[in-house]
Amino acid sequence: MPTLREQAAAIKASAPLVAVAPSAVREAVLRDVATALRANAATILQANELDLAAYVDQGAGRDRLTLTSARIEGMAQALEEIADQPDPLGEIVDADVRPNGLSVAKMRTPLGVIGVVYENRPNVTSDVAGLCIRSGNAAFLRGSSSAQRSNEAIVALWGEALERHGLPAAAVTLVADTSHEAVVTFMQLTDTLDCLIPRGGPSLIAAMREHARVPYVLDGDGNCHVYVDAAADVAMAEAIVVNAKTSRPGVCNAAETLLVHASVAPAFLPRLAAAMPQVALRGDEATCALVTGATAASEADYAQEFLDLILAVKVVESIDEAMAHVARYGTGHSEAIITADPEAAERWVQRVDAAAVVVNASTRFIDGGELGLGGEVGISTQKLHARGPMGLKALTSLKWVVRGEGQIR
Amino acid sequence: MPTLREQAAAIKASAPLVAVAPSAVREAVLRDVATALRANAATILQANELDLAAYVDQGAGRDRLTLTSARIEGMAQALEEIADQPDPLGEIVDADVRPNGLSVAKMRTPLGVIGVVYENRPNVTSDVAGLCIRSGNAAFLRGSSSAQRSNEAIVALWGEALERHGLPAAAVTLVADTSHEAVVTFMQLTDTLDCLIPRGGPSLIAAMREHARVPYVLDGDGNCHVYVDAAADVAMAEAIVVNAKTSRPGVCNAAETLLVHASVAPAFLPRLAAAMPQVALRGDEATCALVTGATAASEADYAQEFLDLILAVKVVESIDEAMAHVARYGTGHSEAIITADPEAAERWVQRVDAAAVVVNASTRFIDGGELGLGGEVGISTQKLHARGPMGLKALTSLKWVVRGEGQIR
Repeated sequence: MPTLREQAAAIKASAPLVAVAPSAVREAVLRDVATALRANAATILQANELDLAAYVDQGAGRDRLTLTSARIEGMAQALEEIADQPDPLGEIVDADVRPNGLSVAKMRTPLGVIGVVYENRPNVTSDVAGLCIRSGNAAFLRGSSSAQRSNEAIVALWGEALERHGLPAAAVTLVADTSHEAVVTFMQLTDTLDCLIPRGGPSLIAAMREHARVPYVLDGDGNCHVYVDAAADVAMAEAIVVNAKTSRPGVCNAAETLLVHASVAPAFLPRLAAAMPQVALRGDEATCALVTGATAASEADYAQEFLDLILAVKVVESIDEAMAHVARYGTGHSEAIITADPEAAERWVQRVDAAAVVVNASTRFIDGGELGLGGEVGISTQKLHARGPMGLKALTSLKWVVRGEGQIR
Repeated sequence: MPTLREQAAAIKASAPLVAVAPSAVREAVLRDVATALRANAATILQANELDLAAYVDQGAGRDRLTLTSARIEGMAQALEEIADQPDPLGEIVDADVRPNGLSVAKMRTPLGVIGVVYENRPNVTSDVAGLCIRSGNAAFLRGSSSAQRSNEAIVALWGEALERHGLPAAAVTLVADTSHEAVVTFMQLTDTLDCLIPRGGPSLIAAMREHARVPYVLDGDGNCHVYVDAAADVAMAEAIVVNAKTSRPGVCNAAETLLVHASVAPAFLPRLAAAMPQVALRGDEATCALVTGATAASEADYAQEFLDLILAVKVVESIDEAMAHVARYGTGHSEAIITADPEAAERWVQRVDAAAVVVNASTRFIDGGELGLGGEVGISTQKLHARGPMGLKALTSLKWVVRGEGQIR
């Protein structure tokens, strides 16, 4: 087994070669891997069966770990969608000529080596590699030890495709040592990692804050709110809240708390409760008075990401009270307002501090694919570098290009 | 003395108010402080005299700490230049309409609370506050304890100006507790700081990597190179190298290593040595053979930021050898090529991985003011978030704005 340091040296050496590979080459690698995934589905499924046989948990983790022919086809299609995206590299922004004649501009470049720490979904391995290679970066992947055989089978196809196109196989590297000590060392590879992205729960985020010594972008929790304004169309509000809460409750862009203006609460809340009887409502006094079966919400309920068929509810007197609640309990992910009042919508857009502010649509759209990015390497809940779904552009940087004719200062 | 936690709570509460203040108000605060600096120069100079009286070191640190009427006028003018910059907030980028009719775009917003840790130049206090307030952010400033009285006098003027324009004085806060323990706590204010920028030497950078628990942007060393290509105009090359090395040797964008193509070295190096006799040249064998008085360079000389009238020199056989040297020893700051060959220039621009690549001009231009930013809060040598001089735009983020008519997923 190669050591982490050996792998780090190899991927670092590969990154400049990926960075200067023409767009057509980087695109062709992705299409090649898509073809290889389909051709080698049986091999991947065999590796996945070994991972599953060794996996004890029978809960949601097992489902995430499980690959099927359909899921492998989904991975191949995801790579084709990323390949279809325009090349992010080489874009020139903020071009200017200074009074002394210097031409100055910024040029979009790859970051270099992107490290990603993630849990046991093997499709992430392929998606992240695709986004990194398409954007001229090398992908250093630290998956879950429980998915290691599946991940190895997928990464092997990447290595072959890279080499067929004259690039080093090391440009997509899976960390071989999946021990806990090695993940701490991984987060401290200051000479190798230009950016580290953790995709996981609160314990991974806490470990990142504690141990990381390289620049990172946090993919944090989504305690997402939907605010139904006084001027909301209640039928639209019902459809959006039902969708945001129930279409996939276990994901970070699902709604966790509903805020309802007092003037529409009597008409809206009983109707909503009837429309999604499978959802447990935990509300304040006003909610419990309006909805039979709602139970009293605690402070902790408003702060929590349930990831389940549970919705916290609060009746508010104004949009400002709703925004204050979001500022207090939100995690800076996705925050929606339902309103027919353009002034209220604009106030929400301007003042709510989150990765995504949404007007009259479901929070479930805050996803790289839905927003047109062709995929995402994570959803940033911090403000530095990138917010929200991180696609190709979020894996780039801008370097200054200054051209003169001998100017001195 | 307020505690760091008390100050953190106050500045955090102030940030949303600065974020929504109209551009004209933020601009007016800067102009108001410029006026106040001029009107209160005597008070600031008195405070500075107390700092200087307590300061033991007689070297460069004393010069950096010293304020004069001219330096205070410079601070006022810097604020006026920042005020003249266009408002960075509200800009809409990457607008798109999705097939389902959703309108998606990104909107430029402030980061929130910017923390800056810096050394004993009191002008930084005013410059950084100006950049932060102009871009809708609050500035949490941790200056050097040796400059605390000067900084307090400057920050008091900021508080008064902010309040005159209806904004909280806490939006520009100077850390009152200048103990070493407090600076570690400062770097860990995860609930308060949206971005932390260290401006200092290697020990500060090391402390940041070790202790920071908030997103940060490193303002690292500048081991800057000038490469004189085979196709260089030697007169231009001489003027640029002399300027890059000698105009201000103690700053991070000064040249530290000269790389010269073997075909021009015999004509160029003796002429350069004669043009700047005050500079000690430390070269490889080829250099020492060409230049009387040059001494042998060690490996450490190529890795070092001299910040002095010393220049490491190496003769190379090709542009690729020059680029390999830069990749090995450079710190990702500013790297210049002098050449009349457009292909060589383009190869340098595309392949050198640094915050700034420079063609036929001095590295000394890599500076916020010179590049048209109106100032800089630091010069990033990392790739995440911002590279090179960080002006107003580097103090912003982009949030997603999604508008629909009831779309669900």
